[in-house]
Amino acid sequence: MSQSSTPTPRTRVTREPERAVYDRAVAYQILDEGFLCHVGFVVDGQPFVIPTSYGRKGDDLYIHGSAASRMLRNLDQGIPVCLTVTLVDGLVLARSIFNHSMNYRSVVVLGTAVAVNDPQEKLAALRALSEHILPGRWTDVRRPNERELKATLVMRLPIEEFSAKVRQGPPVDDEEDYRFPTWAGVIPLTTVAGGPIGDPRLEPPRDVPAYALEYSRRRQAG
Amino acid sequence: MSQSSTPTPRTRVTREPERAVYDRAVAYQILDEGFLCHVGFVVDGQPFVIPTSYGRKGDDLYIHGSAASRMLRNLDQGIPVCLTVTLVDGLVLARSIFNHSMNYRSVVVLGTAVAVNDPQEKLAALRALSEHILPGRWTDVRRPNERELKATLVMRLPIEEFSAKVRQGPPVDDEEDYRFPTWAGVIPLTTVAGGPIGDPRLEPPRDVPAYALEYSRRRQAG
Repeated sequence: MSQSSTPTPRTRVTREPERAVYDRAVAYQILDEGFLCHVGFVVDGQPFVIPTSYGRKGDDLYIHGSAASRMLRNLDQGIPVCLTVTLVDGLVLARSIFNHSMNYRSVVVLGTAVAVNDPQEKLAALRALSEHILPGRWTDVRRPNERELKATLVMRLPIEEFSAKVRQGPPVDDEEDYRFPTWAGVIPLTTVAGGPIGDPRLEPPRDVPAYALEYSRRRQAG
Repeated sequence: MSQSSTPTPRTRVTREPERAVYDRAVAYQILDEGFLCHVGFVVDGQPFVIPTSYGRKGDDLYIHGSAASRMLRNLDQGIPVCLTVTLVDGLVLARSIFNHSMNYRSVVVLGTAVAVNDPQEKLAALRALSEHILPGRWTDVRRPNERELKATLVMRLPIEEFSAKVRQGPPVDDEEDYRFPTWAGVIPLTTVAGGPIGDPRLEPPRDVPAYALEYSRRRQAG
């Protein structure tokens, strides 16, 4: 697998090409920081965009869901898919409304998702998904039984045709607008975690595990 | 416009139908809290999912971008579109990996976007977009000139065929799993704003406007 992706006509970033990143390492960093993607697929000419969690393992992305889900049943037909991950980093307030923007990092992956039928790969994919979202959780819970595995559809999407887009830093105004008498700058945005909230049915009481505390700690504000 | 949407076969939530919401007020609350959507459209059979900001005005959503953008040029052909907004509220940690979930609120709108060509409506739509994201900003900046308006494509998507999905609260495990010896609960997630960061080119220095401080204050952690 090459370290970067030569943009195809479909993944070449046409708007603000200076924001385009075709480097695999940058794309993987974005994919590893996120955990929610929006999956696009087409049924009878109508696009659907569905939010779902994902995991990355090497050069593959995995998504999963109920074997009865409309989305996954459709992807299972081998239809084209688009998986997009977006991290929003801030509102960019320029002097002109026209140059307002957002700081963000996004990755778009195009391809065809295939169902993972091999039981070993399926379990490994579910583990990758779980560890992607909350490292440490997998070994601390009841793992899937045969019935649950059958009820779960896991899809693999190879990260082959992709592009990333990154916008960072202060606003960029037209030169003549820098005199305009208004404040300009960035309002940073982050996703933060609060402290873990125990299930009311937690009986007997149990300590919050270290990996959950660590997750909250690493994603605290400030 | 009715207060709720009768689900069509395309918007009826088939998975976890108990999470489905077809109430317009609930959907609008979600749409008004968010500001980033993922727009899905199809080109030559390939779905694309592109993140972009949006604004709501009454029963219409507006998106905008460069008149040269691939996404907007395609939507301008009157092709079917799917606009999805997702707010993530937490990781839901169950006793079994199978019952792990997320707390979230999402809205899916299907329809056909149409270009806004009337100059008055176009300006009003851009104002709605701006005020949706940061109320107060519009009157404080240099507004679009004729050249910029021409370079901007604004699309209107009526909120007619839509559904919302909401999951909240603690994990729900299979009854026999409540004995399983692990911690269970929710790690809450929120998008928070940091304090506004002035543009290094802010000359002379200017006070951060009240609406920007208010935005950060309302979205602080804790």
